Amino acid sequence: MNGETINRAVVAAEYAVRGPIVVQARQLEKALERGAELPFDKVVYCNIGNPHQLGQKPVSYYRQVLAAIDCEGLDGAFPADVVARANEYKRSIKGGTGAYSESKGVETLRQRVAVGITKRDGYAANPDDIFLTDGASAGCHYLMNVLIRGIDDAVMCPIPQYPLYSAALTLYGGTLVPYYLDEDRAWSLNVDHVKKQLVDARAEGKNVRAIVVINPGNPTGNLLSDENLTEIATFCADEGLLLISDEVYQENVYAEGKKFTSMRKIVFDAGLEKRVALASFHSTSKGFYGECGRRGGYMELVGAWDSDVVAAIMKLASIALCPNLAGQVVTSMVMDPPKEGEPSYELFCKERDDILASLKRRSITLGSALNALEGVTCQPADGAMYCFPNLVFPQKYMDECKEANKIPDVEYCTRLLNQTGIVTVPGSGFGQKPGTWHFRTTFLPSEEDIKGVAVKLTDFHNSFIAQYK
Amino acid sequence: MNGETINRAVVAAEYAVRGPIVVQARQLEKALERGAELPFDKVVYCNIGNPHQLGQKPVSYYRQVLAAIDCEGLDGAFPADVVARANEYKRSIKGGTGAYSESKGVETLRQRVAVGITKRDGYAANPDDIFLTDGASAGCHYLMNVLIRGIDDAVMCPIPQYPLYSAALTLYGGTLVPYYLDEDRAWSLNVDHVKKQLVDARAEGKNVRAIVVINPGNPTGNLLSDENLTEIATFCADEGLLLISDEVYQENVYAEGKKFTSMRKIVFDAGLEKRVALASFHSTSKGFYGECGRRGGYMELVGAWDSDVVAAIMKLASIALCPNLAGQVVTSMVMDPPKEGEPSYELFCKERDDILASLKRRSITLGSALNALEGVTCQPADGAMYCFPNLVFPQKYMDECKEANKIPDVEYCTRLLNQTGIVTVPGSGFGQKPGTWHFRTTFLPSEEDIKGVAVKLTDFHNSFIAQYK
Repeated sequence: MNGETINRAVVAAEYAVRGPIVVQARQLEKALERGAELPFDKVVYCNIGNPHQLGQKPVSYYRQVLAAIDCEGLDGAFPADVVARANEYKRSIKGGTGAYSESKGVETLRQRVAVGITKRDGYAANPDDIFLTDGASAGCHYLMNVLIRGIDDAVMCPIPQYPLYSAALTLYGGTLVPYYLDEDRAWSLNVDHVKKQLVDARAEGKNVRAIVVINPGNPTGNLLSDENLTEIATFCADEGLLLISDEVYQENVYAEGKKFTSMRKIVFDAGLEKRVALASFHSTSKGFYGECGRRGGYMELVGAWDSDVVAAIMKLASIALCPNLAGQVVTSMVMDPPKEGEPSYELFCKERDDILASLKRRSITLGSALNALEGVTCQPADGAMYCFPNLVFPQKYMDECKEANKIPDVEYCTRLLNQTGIVTVPGSGFGQKPGTWHFRTTFLPSEEDIKGVAVKLTDFHNSFIAQYK
Repeated sequence: MNGETINRAVVAAEYAVRGPIVVQARQLEKALERGAELPFDKVVYCNIGNPHQLGQKPVSYYRQVLAAIDCEGLDGAFPADVVARANEYKRSIKGGTGAYSESKGVETLRQRVAVGITKRDGYAANPDDIFLTDGASAGCHYLMNVLIRGIDDAVMCPIPQYPLYSAALTLYGGTLVPYYLDEDRAWSLNVDHVKKQLVDARAEGKNVRAIVVINPGNPTGNLLSDENLTEIATFCADEGLLLISDEVYQENVYAEGKKFTSMRKIVFDAGLEKRVALASFHSTSKGFYGECGRRGGYMELVGAWDSDVVAAIMKLASIALCPNLAGQVVTSMVMDPPKEGEPSYELFCKERDDILASLKRRSITLGSALNALEGVTCQPADGAMYCFPNLVFPQKYMDECKEANKIPDVEYCTRLLNQTGIVTVPGSGFGQKPGTWHFRTTFLPSEEDIKGVAVKLTDFHNSFIAQYK
């Protein structure tokens, strides 16, 4: 077996967030560890939303409950509410965190997730509709696997998009129908444009089965308005599209006066729950908790789902046995956190508020630095963890790239890495309007480090511009 | 979207270990919780190797290290070697268990896995060859996804087999070429028969790309001899087949005088490492530890792998981001356990030996009870966690099943569940020689419970036989 005889879909799939630039970054990091002389003394991974790796501390409550469940005899070390919750979990999780659970996840943990969803939306959630998953990715894979029968089955995705969707569509052999977010209007979504894209795709013989909405946006950080969400939900009802709502950044909203509304609440508010099948994703990896390595999350299926389709998703979950139990436990705590009056409540709120306030400051620091650069404009991030600046490259640089057969944004990010150690993802990894260039960077380095990142980025960009002027 | 328009491969996939009988069992359990009157007072899940759920206690050392890593401030609660290992992990895992790691897993944890493999086989392992995975299943999915381009790509699997392989092959749209294990010779593997099956499949136009070997066997519990393993490895070298060795039960060997040899050692002993590409699976879910809910494991790729193929597998791992960190940590401890002289060593050995000795006693208890039943023969389990008895059903029962269009072993297991609460998996879920009938049951219920299971099984079977005599 060799490269010629590999399944072509695997060869074609791309996932830039962990692509060649990241592989190169790891090699540079190893070179530094061996004592190599490079123009920088550390590699800073801004390619991926991975807060703990950049120094963010875990939320104490989650970790205390986890430790108390995993290991006997620690009760004396923890506040009473931690012990009480851990004991409740030990009673209700048969066999504890070392046992396979139901394939959808432990029922009592799904009940806690349902409590959180109900509180968030004001509409009662049913634990039976909830699949606990290893991160949000697993839910996406289940849906794509069930939906895609061949190249003519298509799913609409925003451009730019989080490349899990494009990668999964390629792996399962389907087609991505793009709809472009409007950068000039802070990456908002234009439903008339979405409709046009649907009509065009259908005219080309595509069987468009679903639409993905990412809110808050990744990589764009845009928060969609309630009106916009209602338009999309209505559009799905009218066109018979399954609605996939990626809401993993729902607790990362920084813009003054804006707040997150779930697509689920929109569907119920608009009375569309009998006409739309909605899948919503959430994850322990994002929010203020950033428990990426835990691989926790959930997918909720509400509205007009066909029972055979749900059974098929259930079968895929069964073949994967079950999501990891520690991830399930953290997901349940994310959705059902400590309550006012409980001993852990005050510390929990302080940790949460400090992290979110710091993220907001860091987003402003980085966004301002980017907007000050020549040829760079960066929409303010309403939410999520990223800046996605637009780069207008000098013509001389564009000519040079064309000559050398290089993709301009990939080349820019590669040079940025080699000269500063800062790891970013080229806009082409997410998709972008033809003729525009971007990169995605997290604003996750610590408050101390983010200023250094801003300075290094500025210096790099200035000398880049000077070189090509 | 409805049942008619689901991807047919998902509809066709079957995974009996979590199939309809298990769904029914959960409904019965819920009925009991609601106070329903049933012929039994609890449901006993013997369908799946899930030791903790049936009361096995976790290994203390693993859990102490996990807790010390996850939660600050607990050092005083643990022995010095636990604290030392936890501190070493905290230093070397960037961002700890809450951070995404490299997609193959944390390098220092892979180094520990390599230490264990080297010690086991006497041939040095390379951490770069090791992919840490969420259980063993993820590795299987990566391989099948890379291998299978369409229905004419085929993988040879033992029959009976663990249905992950058949399910994955169906999902990726390939073909399973069976080779039958020889029940009369304690489920041994006949290489001449394997060759014949290969020749026949090729004659039918199948592109046979790989062979799966499960050792110790699942569901059969058979341990393959070194001679047998060498024959298979040579066969793969001669025929250009990729060799997939599922060794998740490598620490579950009970037969006097027998011991597990890895396929990796066989390949090196026979000097075949330049001629065979071998993928080996291991898991934290089995062994004496039984950390199923942790979803930990590894896949090691050694021998004649093409670098493009390895790169494609790496890309799939990247799209999944990374395996959960707690699972990675436990995998590293499974392969690099406490050492003689360390404070935790004695307790660790006692827990390990007690669990393994008890499993051996339980396998004998259940095996003897099964062999005493009319029309039932059960090969002794050399290893693994299962009995897979052969059932010769009365003709009257067979006629009744034919009349009612029921599959005899499925019907038998369904009745067993409804009358006793014991959950087993029909042999047809694993594949079996046409005209033979089996079921798989774990021998994992506690020493106290296993006797009750044996009595209930005996009573059920006796009245079943009496009914149809």
